[in-house]
Amino acid sequence: MKQNIYDNPIFFKNYTSLRETGVTYNDFIEQPAIKSLISSLKDKTVLDLGCGTGQFANYCVEKGAAKVLAVDISKNMIDKAMKENNHEKIEYHCSPIEDFQFNHQTFDLIISSLAIHYIEDYDSLITKISQLLKDGGEFIFSTEHPIVTARKDMNNWVRDEGGNKLHWAVDHYQEEGIRKEYWYIDGVIKYHRTISTLLNTLIEKGLVLEKVVEPTSIAIGLEKMPKVINEERKPSFLVIKAKKQEVKF
Amino acid sequence: MKQNIYDNPIFFKNYTSLRETGVTYNDFIEQPAIKSLISSLKDKTVLDLGCGTGQFANYCVEKGAAKVLAVDISKNMIDKAMKENNHEKIEYHCSPIEDFQFNHQTFDLIISSLAIHYIEDYDSLITKISQLLKDGGEFIFSTEHPIVTARKDMNNWVRDEGGNKLHWAVDHYQEEGIRKEYWYIDGVIKYHRTISTLLNTLIEKGLVLEKVVEPTSIAIGLEKMPKVINEERKPSFLVIKAKKQEVKF
Repeated sequence: MKQNIYDNPIFFKNYTSLRETGVTYNDFIEQPAIKSLISSLKDKTVLDLGCGTGQFANYCVEKGAAKVLAVDISKNMIDKAMKENNHEKIEYHCSPIEDFQFNHQTFDLIISSLAIHYIEDYDSLITKISQLLKDGGEFIFSTEHPIVTARKDMNNWVRDEGGNKLHWAVDHYQEEGIRKEYWYIDGVIKYHRTISTLLNTLIEKGLVLEKVVEPTSIAIGLEKMPKVINEERKPSFLVIKAKKQEVKF
Repeated sequence: MKQNIYDNPIFFKNYTSLRETGVTYNDFIEQPAIKSLISSLKDKTVLDLGCGTGQFANYCVEKGAAKVLAVDISKNMIDKAMKENNHEKIEYHCSPIEDFQFNHQTFDLIISSLAIHYIEDYDSLITKISQLLKDGGEFIFSTEHPIVTARKDMNNWVRDEGGNKLHWAVDHYQEEGIRKEYWYIDGVIKYHRTISTLLNTLIEKGLVLEKVVEPTSIAIGLEKMPKVINEERKPSFLVIKAKKQEVKF
């Protein structure tokens, strides 16, 4: 059974309340980085893996995408998406992203925002993504940075007696696999993978690495959420863009 | 004036004594990783940037390289190389690797072992390396891992009162530039760069990323130097292989 924390009522309530503030790491760090990597959305066919409440799917349509297929494991999320970000060009599906069945569809752009660290079998997912991309198509995804997921005890800021952040703690880096943490509810499971695994798997599956971003906050974030300055001290996210090789004749 | 610690007599004596033991991080972790990435040396023209005492240049010739151009900033190192690893197929030059003048030569393989973290201007060096590679040629280099160079106070293992290693400390990650440390002598200067800078610069200069390795020790290392087990907790090195794009007609 795949983990589906977003259908836990306590988690869902807290998570959606947080996102609705518009004052989050997503708003100031991760989403700007993802968006900065997209070449163009005009007339593109997009697949959004882990679409949540459909905000990004809606953004794609606003920017001229021809069609967005948006998939999420959580019924809560998909229900909310269909209410708040309904559009004739967006097709929502409730399914674990690993299990979704595609009917010979291919895509110009595949996006996945902070979902891949919940996926156990990265290798199979990237194989599938590579097959789903058109030649020259782009895959852009964000994930928690391996510096963040490495240590098994994920309370990673080491503080002095006054609570000041002394440094960030890394450990168990090469030991890939399950990391459990408390995030609104107990036992949220993420998967740690090394930077080399994240990158080499893309290359092995026929993708060409185009850019790697370890984003810091945009300017407005530093005003509205001063603690994002700590992103200078260690990155929270890794954002990667890769391209399916174009076949040349 | 470029830093040339290897011509400091105290440093040189200590460093060469260490390397001659054959029981080092180079022997068990870094060199095996570099060598594992080389496709073939047979009949290849090789450039070795930061060649030290020429052991690797000699390895290339043993494995069938047609010619090795080996460059190092240190006169001490080049003198020792010409004594210990002299070969008609190896040409040694004493020069900072950034300043060496090439006469329209190009190479099948460019190697740089743990030298690039001493170089201030990575961007210019990679531009030059890209120009020096033949189409389809390989660039393989190792550098200290950004997890290691990030924190300004480079005493990165945080220990308990009994001296046991609790975790590895990371800080100042996004602040690229000079890091000073004590390594046999005071004020050894290294340059910290983020993983994204290391990778994106290669891509921007026309190289295709082929593999990223965060190496752990080979088996014999765990026997002869038990502390290398700590490489499981955090990687010391980053080893990168990139290829000059082949021009297709």
